Amino acid sequence: MQKIGLVIHGGAGDETPHLQKHLKEYEQGLKEALKLGYDILKNGGSALEVVEAAVINLEDNPHFNAGKGSALNNQGEVEMDAAIMDGKNQSAGAVSMVRNVKNPIILARTIMNKTKHVFLSGYGALDFAKQNELILEPEAYFITDYAYEEFLHCSKEDALQEIMERKIYGTVGAVALDEKGNIAAATSTGGLSNSLAGRIGDSCIIGAGCYASNRSCAVSGTGEGEVLITDVIAHSIAMTVEFKRFPLQKACDYVILKRKRPKRGNIGVISIDAKGNIGICFSGQVMKRAWVTSDDEEIHIGIY
Amino acid sequence: MQKIGLVIHGGAGDETPHLQKHLKEYEQGLKEALKLGYDILKNGGSALEVVEAAVINLEDNPHFNAGKGSALNNQGEVEMDAAIMDGKNQSAGAVSMVRNVKNPIILARTIMNKTKHVFLSGYGALDFAKQNELILEPEAYFITDYAYEEFLHCSKEDALQEIMERKIYGTVGAVALDEKGNIAAATSTGGLSNSLAGRIGDSCIIGAGCYASNRSCAVSGTGEGEVLITDVIAHSIAMTVEFKRFPLQKACDYVILKRKRPKRGNIGVISIDAKGNIGICFSGQVMKRAWVTSDDEEIHIGIY
Repeated sequence: MQKIGLVIHGGAGDETPHLQKHLKEYEQGLKEALKLGYDILKNGGSALEVVEAAVINLEDNPHFNAGKGSALNNQGEVEMDAAIMDGKNQSAGAVSMVRNVKNPIILARTIMNKTKHVFLSGYGALDFAKQNELILEPEAYFITDYAYEEFLHCSKEDALQEIMERKIYGTVGAVALDEKGNIAAATSTGGLSNSLAGRIGDSCIIGAGCYASNRSCAVSGTGEGEVLITDVIAHSIAMTVEFKRFPLQKACDYVILKRKRPKRGNIGVISIDAKGNIGICFSGQVMKRAWVTSDDEEIHIGIY
Repeated sequence: MQKIGLVIHGGAGDETPHLQKHLKEYEQGLKEALKLGYDILKNGGSALEVVEAAVINLEDNPHFNAGKGSALNNQGEVEMDAAIMDGKNQSAGAVSMVRNVKNPIILARTIMNKTKHVFLSGYGALDFAKQNELILEPEAYFITDYAYEEFLHCSKEDALQEIMERKIYGTVGAVALDEKGNIAAATSTGGLSNSLAGRIGDSCIIGAGCYASNRSCAVSGTGEGEVLITDVIAHSIAMTVEFKRFPLQKACDYVILKRKRPKRGNIGVISIDAKGNIGICFSGQVMKRAWVTSDDEEIHIGIY
């Protein structure tokens, strides 16, 4: 019988007091999104549908940096990025720098379904969301006390240096394998706290923070976005599987931990292939993650 | 002795009456940019410097769709994308959806040099350009009669369908190898005529339309941007060189023409490796291109 499986993440980086304090909320949030997605998968839902549903759930959860709860850029504004990719036909949709859209991942999928384009950005993406009657929310919906406190905290110091040194990266993502043997990946983020306005990270870049092809694997990445972009991390893992014929976990370890790279960075990935193998790897102290497969249907949750 | 070399392109696609009519201007433009870049290379300039200089020259040339002469989106506006990558350390800079900046490739390089980010977009990118005193021009500078005629022509019909069927893609790009054995890539575009506002193509996506690593090769892509993005074309060529150990031309042919892909698309690439091997491949009727190496210093120009 065809195996099915789902892996999700809620960001990677270093340990922080905030994480320690909210460990339960993070674990609860991961569990909820995983169960919701896996139920759809068990009921015959497609991998694409499931990664979208899991990411919507995480976007709606204010504890994660995507949708509600997004980080604020250095102008105190919320600009969100997301991408989704269908491993069956390598179709993809991506959005960057979008405001007011409650669920950027739905916008990414709508771009994939309804345009000949892959990637829309900024006000054009917002116009397209309005035309397609996606749910919009005022700026106030997205902003949490924690995100504002982080913004204030980082504003006091040399913002970029501080952020880079703290190595806390918020992103959410999911990869899934469905009963038809198709895989998919989805990634969404509120971005980097106090980044320059207009900064685009890896989450919306096909090949960097999101990639899926039935031939190799589906990958969602998180961590230092600039490293994920310049090393084309998600696609590097897929190519390691396809060209080097590495098993998935070994491919993740190779790309994240072993392969020589100019800037190693603090990054992490979750991945799944069409046979139901899972690969999870991160180079920092923490990656909020959860996974389940039809092997034993056990819910696994990991933070450290 | 270390070989040096430079390859440039001015876009790929199908033959058009406009191309036939302006063949001389295109050939002249390619020759000028190539000579300018190769002179810098011969005088000890770095690959990075040379790809930037060649692309600046093509951006300033109104016959090519980048900088002056950019295509207009479906709102009649100019939004430009560019990326640059240094193969020596895999540093990169990219910009999307930027207006008024005379040379988007200079902005991409400035982002690379002066921020911890790789990718800036929209008004944030424009603010950053202003802070760094890059040359700005009014909208009128960028708009040529031809771009406006194309815009009017496409506005009359089902824009996307028409554009997709016509398969004319304007981009400019350069890859170079310098006397220190370093390679670099740069790509710049005015985008797709009558695209949805906010559409981002492959030119500014590291791994899609621009990639460079001394370990494999430097690639600049052109053509159907959506295919370059979902197939992560530039990085696929680099991985084919690195993991499959294909010679560069064979790797380009494999990725563009042979490798099974869900959507084949009308695309093209130029590439160079650290040994001075050149790879050029395109799947349509036309790619405006020129190249020279220290082997014989002969100027090669090709259109068909």
